[in-house]
Amino acid sequence: MEECLFCKIIRKEIPSKIIHEDDKVLAFLDISPVNKGHTLVIPKNHSIDLSEMSDDDVDACFKVARNLGNRMIEKLGADGYNINMNTKKAAGQIIFHSHIHIIPRFLGDGLELWHGKPYEESEIDGIHQKLKY
Amino acid sequence: MEECLFCKIIRKEIPSKIIHEDDKVLAFLDISPVNKGHTLVIPKNHSIDLSEMSDDDVDACFKVARNLGNRMIEKLGADGYNINMNTKKAAGQIIFHSHIHIIPRFLGDGLELWHGKPYEESEIDGIHQKLKY
Repeated sequence: MEECLFCKIIRKEIPSKIIHEDDKVLAFLDISPVNKGHTLVIPKNHSIDLSEMSDDDVDACFKVARNLGNRMIEKLGADGYNINMNTKKAAGQIIFHSHIHIIPRFLGDGLELWHGKPYEESEIDGIHQKLKY
Repeated sequence: MEECLFCKIIRKEIPSKIIHEDDKVLAFLDISPVNKGHTLVIPKNHSIDLSEMSDDDVDACFKVARNLGNRMIEKLGADGYNINMNTKKAAGQIIFHSHIHIIPRFLGDGLELWHGKPYEESEIDGIHQKLKY
């Protein structure tokens, strides 16, 4: 895609700190990290978000994400990592080229996950009926 | 695994609201949702977290996660969804059987993502050298 920021990074028209590249996938450091070492994994085939990623790209990208998370433990001394993917604007997506966030985590780094919101009585059953397949 | 909560759910020793089941994967509603419809996708083969999930389980689980996210848009009227996986205690993992969170998102639902922490000058280069492969 001519004007897509991440497609420009793939074509090296915009420089990035590349962590890994193969025929299907590019991984590079996020320049606005939520923790140091925060990396993005993207498919070279343009898709706007996970909802339209091909099976092939899902397979290739999430395996690189797992390998990179493990590398963060090994090379950065991280105590764990989060894998995150935000699909559509309502979910916090800003760049509309599919990307997986890999965020290294360190004990006591202070990042907080979302908190639970309990179901009202029987509400869970309606949702169950709608979603199951 | 005898005592693993999610293995007991897979064996139906503990009931759950199952959304999808196939030979490799089980998906069911999280009983402590961060948004209504929050679903977990787990591999039937026990692995403690993403770091030790097989390629096969990664492929199978993330494709179900994508399909389920799309189903949340279609069936629950969600405006988007987040895919999340917390690896190790430092990353917020509580149950040590690999699981992917799929969280439906609605415009204005008030969930906030983590905020950026900028790099100090040249710090990014050291991290780049350590991680790249």
